[in-house]
Amino acid sequence: MSKDENEKISLAVVKRLPRYYRYLGDLLEHGITRISSGDLSKKMGVTASQIRQDLNKFGCFGQRGYGYNVEMLYAEIKKILGLDREYNMIIIGAGNLGQALANYPNFRKRGFKFIGAFDKNPDIVGKTAGDIVIMDISELEPFLKENRVDIAVLSIPKYNAPKISPILVENGVRGIWNFSHIDLNTPDNVVVENAHLTESVMTLSYKLSELEKNNKE
Amino acid sequence: MSKDENEKISLAVVKRLPRYYRYLGDLLEHGITRISSGDLSKKMGVTASQIRQDLNKFGCFGQRGYGYNVEMLYAEIKKILGLDREYNMIIIGAGNLGQALANYPNFRKRGFKFIGAFDKNPDIVGKTAGDIVIMDISELEPFLKENRVDIAVLSIPKYNAPKISPILVENGVRGIWNFSHIDLNTPDNVVVENAHLTESVMTLSYKLSELEKNNKE
Repeated sequence: MSKDENEKISLAVVKRLPRYYRYLGDLLEHGITRISSGDLSKKMGVTASQIRQDLNKFGCFGQRGYGYNVEMLYAEIKKILGLDREYNMIIIGAGNLGQALANYPNFRKRGFKFIGAFDKNPDIVGKTAGDIVIMDISELEPFLKENRVDIAVLSIPKYNAPKISPILVENGVRGIWNFSHIDLNTPDNVVVENAHLTESVMTLSYKLSELEKNNKE
Repeated sequence: MSKDENEKISLAVVKRLPRYYRYLGDLLEHGITRISSGDLSKKMGVTASQIRQDLNKFGCFGQRGYGYNVEMLYAEIKKILGLDREYNMIIIGAGNLGQALANYPNFRKRGFKFIGAFDKNPDIVGKTAGDIVIMDISELEPFLKENRVDIAVLSIPKYNAPKISPILVENGVRGIWNFSHIDLNTPDNVVVENAHLTESVMTLSYKLSELEKNNKE
């Protein structure tokens, strides 16, 4: 794929790619090497035209009468999503959520490697998260100076996040996965992906109240 | 606001509402009762025209020269998001992630009340999550028959989710907050909100590789 084509991918499509990636991975695990947009459509519960619209721009994978080459498409999406490399990750805030993330086996499998965890709570420091000994937050800055860290996971209360985020940025961290319930101010050369769980549950409560409204009609 | 207007809200706007809700709540906490779209724009880092497009449909809140009535707008968004009531929630899978959710103080504050937690691991059953004693998964069905449960949080491995989801649906649970990395097949009268953390981190790795690509150019 040429870079020009790549640049045309909208963030809306990018957000759908992990789901395609998951389904294509499942197909590969089951030894299925090609699939039509119609069959993929049935599996994924989206229209075939949506699938063609999303995937046909990635070069000549969807040939008429042949369908998609699962392996090539999987490899292409993997590359687009930046999953063809390893990321060094640290966790800041090793409470339950930080622990949950550190223990999640899929991250390692996808190339996200936890190399450090930090907390300010003395009851937590010294314990392990995954296979990592949790360090005191005062060790964060020296750690960043000595190690290449690509991604920092922020799972700390919102009032602490704005204090930590500049330390990360100044020490070369370029990716922040932000679970803290606040928007971070970061320069253009840093990317932030918010994972605000409260916002997710509010979308659910919206859908539930719409459902109840429709039932009453 | 009339129901007709309400029905016109797209899911894209709904997904942005929790963020408005958070900012408006912060303004109220600071005693600010009205704000122009320009000022809100600066605070939130989105264009004023986006804000007007998103919010002006909620009746006459954005009067020219006056700005938004923060309290009214906050109350309106609260209602739209279904946050003007309480939801009984249970957690299925009380590992680290389930524990993190049970202990998250904001949920209770927003009206999401945990009333039960279940796990199949005998090492976890009998412990507490938040202020709830974790029950064995075999107690799930009797519990559902005796209690009104609005939302079930699924934080279990993906291969177990398709077994649990029908039990929930058959026993009247209408909302599933799905952290299990699989798509659930549910009937039309059940709503599912996926919170797939792997997909979130893949969006981050995409952004990071785009960033690096641009730096090399």
